[in-house]
Amino acid sequence: MIPFDFNEATTKLNAEITALNFDKKPQELYHPVRYFLDLGGKRMRPLLSLLSCYLFDNEYIKATKASLAIEIFHNFTLIHDDIMDNAPLRRGKPTVHEKWNRNIALLAGDITLIEAYEHLEYLPNEIRKDVVKRFNKTAFEVCEGQQFDMNFELREEVSIEEYIEMIRLKTAVLLGFSMYMGAKIGNATEIEANKMYEVALNIGLAFQIKDDYLDVYGDAKKFGKQVGGDILSDKKTFLLLSALKSKNNTDLKNIIGNKNTSSNEKINKVLAIYEKENIKHITEIEMKKYFDKAIEILKTVSADESKKSFISQYFNDLMTRET
Amino acid sequence: MIPFDFNEATTKLNAEITALNFDKKPQELYHPVRYFLDLGGKRMRPLLSLLSCYLFDNEYIKATKASLAIEIFHNFTLIHDDIMDNAPLRRGKPTVHEKWNRNIALLAGDITLIEAYEHLEYLPNEIRKDVVKRFNKTAFEVCEGQQFDMNFELREEVSIEEYIEMIRLKTAVLLGFSMYMGAKIGNATEIEANKMYEVALNIGLAFQIKDDYLDVYGDAKKFGKQVGGDILSDKKTFLLLSALKSKNNTDLKNIIGNKNTSSNEKINKVLAIYEKENIKHITEIEMKKYFDKAIEILKTVSADESKKSFISQYFNDLMTRET
Repeated sequence: MIPFDFNEATTKLNAEITALNFDKKPQELYHPVRYFLDLGGKRMRPLLSLLSCYLFDNEYIKATKASLAIEIFHNFTLIHDDIMDNAPLRRGKPTVHEKWNRNIALLAGDITLIEAYEHLEYLPNEIRKDVVKRFNKTAFEVCEGQQFDMNFELREEVSIEEYIEMIRLKTAVLLGFSMYMGAKIGNATEIEANKMYEVALNIGLAFQIKDDYLDVYGDAKKFGKQVGGDILSDKKTFLLLSALKSKNNTDLKNIIGNKNTSSNEKINKVLAIYEKENIKHITEIEMKKYFDKAIEILKTVSADESKKSFISQYFNDLMTRET
Repeated sequence: MIPFDFNEATTKLNAEITALNFDKKPQELYHPVRYFLDLGGKRMRPLLSLLSCYLFDNEYIKATKASLAIEIFHNFTLIHDDIMDNAPLRRGKPTVHEKWNRNIALLAGDITLIEAYEHLEYLPNEIRKDVVKRFNKTAFEVCEGQQFDMNFELREEVSIEEYIEMIRLKTAVLLGFSMYMGAKIGNATEIEANKMYEVALNIGLAFQIKDDYLDVYGDAKKFGKQVGGDILSDKKTFLLLSALKSKNNTDLKNIIGNKNTSSNEKINKVLAIYEKENIKHITEIEMKKYFDKAIEILKTVSADESKKSFISQYFNDLMTRET
């Protein structure tokens, strides 16, 4: 088996991002895009594309430029989400609307989306139509997910099913698309590419629930942010919504509605309820459900067994991360 | 000559817009898009596409669906521009951010842009690559124009050349693209399609200067908005910038910097300076320069002479409009 080189792939992706020319006028428009792309990140989405391409074709590096469409699209959503969420920081640095202003962030997001479409032009002609069609569908869904997320903040009650559908749209479908596109570039059939879509979609759901889980049960030092942040902000996470499902949820409802509780007291009270309601275990079961489903689907893909094991192992490493 | 039917074309375009399905969830995301597209407008950009297609191919109706990409893109820019300009009204109705809120308007604009790209998929395969490449270039330019426009509001001095470049980017290139695309769908050569781009680009410049002109010299009743609105808001129009070029511009600089002048007094004072500096005539000359250039280029296009005359006449009617 020809090995997949994560370091080489990441270096290549970052080099391509650095090579993009944003040294154009007006600089008020282009500098924020350069700034934001340079904030870094793990480039997970294009890496998933390359990995999925690799499963069907050793020449996986050929997916680099097209896969950047996904990374750039992801950055577009972050720039605009940061405006909508009034977020001051992204990856520890000021967000675009904080560093410049909201109008500049809006327009910088817009050209980032156009830049994403520009990169789809690197797709081979034979697969372009299918992949762009799926990209558009995914892009609509990501926006729908963001709107549902904003709606849920204003709603009293959100069911677990609604929450899962929201994270599917907001996060998981873009991971699904990443592996779909990589498979298509690797000349996989539509059936195999769709399987890779489902693999990454389920991994995405597992990741997102893991994110909620780490906020409460993560190692503060390794996780890099305050444990319990979601609890303090009454964020409707998988954990909170699961606890609210219990018949005796009056205590919990009082705590999350109460602005007078001190930070530590609030966290401790909620943790006690999570303990009583077995929320840690319920969440672990839910993560595992989606993770196992991803691995099961991956097993059915017609491809080299050792490559499939390699990808399974990669997902496993990601899932056992503490950050 | 097979006639071009403006009524039929407009009816067809509006029917296609009505048929677009935005009855999807979450309705907070899709209803604003439906609302905004239904505000109407003359659908000038897709009509220019159809007209340009007609010049090379009698079956111009085939350009309808792809040409809607331009109308939808135009609406995306309006939704986001309205946020940036804090505009309360669009076509006499509340803007999206006024009727709903800024976050909804931001996200509604985003999906409108994605919808525009979705419509580019109606382009015939043979010309898709060229047209999408030009569309992306145009989309970047429109955003650049909006940023320059915002920059100019904050700047003391703006030259006529900078102003023309701004309106070229913000408005004229999209008209240029409209006729380029129509020509390509009509199987024009790249050379002829590029000529049609230049034709519409110059018409666009003439239109935009005409817009500035009508604010001052238009018939208030026919124009449908207060004459002198640009003067009251110190808007850097072609007229104001031309008057500021004069050596004796101290009076004008004092007037536009002075918040204490009553409305009518301010308008009358500026009008007197325009009169002294011959601004009406200078503006008419400038409009005519771009208009004549458009007609000159149109004459060099290899196409049916009577169709070319028909399009010339259409441009002429548009230019002599009072609204």
